[in-house]
Amino acid sequence: MIATAQTPPPPYYAVIFTSLRTDGDNDYAATAAQMLEIASQQPGFLGFESARQEIGISVSYWASLEAIAAWKENIMHRKAQSRARDWYRQFRVRICRVEREYGF
Amino acid sequence: MIATAQTPPPPYYAVIFTSLRTDGDNDYAATAAQMLEIASQQPGFLGFESARQEIGISVSYWASLEAIAAWKENIMHRKAQSRARDWYRQFRVRICRVEREYGF
Repeated sequence: MIATAQTPPPPYYAVIFTSLRTDGDNDYAATAAQMLEIASQQPGFLGFESARQEIGISVSYWASLEAIAAWKENIMHRKAQSRARDWYRQFRVRICRVEREYGF
Repeated sequence: MIATAQTPPPPYYAVIFTSLRTDGDNDYAATAAQMLEIASQQPGFLGFESARQEIGISVSYWASLEAIAAWKENIMHRKAQSRARDWYRQFRVRICRVEREYGF
């Protein structure tokens, strides 16, 4: 079932990844699916949300800055990072501490 | 030109709004456009990014928690907030401090 990410009470961390794609797939879809599968097995992974229209926004949620740093250094993830310019004309990574949360 | 939000050096704040829509428009599109126009005139507003596929993700960027609180209390915004259940089956608001940012 599609749902917004179910995260624990704050504080925890969010990585907001916003991007504009290049033309063509260039293994993007397969790599993105693989990265999500690997990320979701990392210690401290809490959830993931993603949507793309003109711009793409993906948010991953993490228990700690250490968990984010470990995922950034993951060997498969580093291999994907090295291909960033094949897939993105522009991207921005923002590492955030979630202070407060509400909703229904 | 479509681009990722151009924000100042951290720290600053992000409000991550994730949602699942109800069926039908119910004035949603017009209200969302109006809210963005008003928000972007608020003191401390830094930028906005949005995309929707299965899930909707909108991120607004702000200079301070005070700026976020003032926008939350804006009278037009409060009127829109009171209609949340007309538009959303589910939503989550996460208020975050952006600690670090990079990209190209």
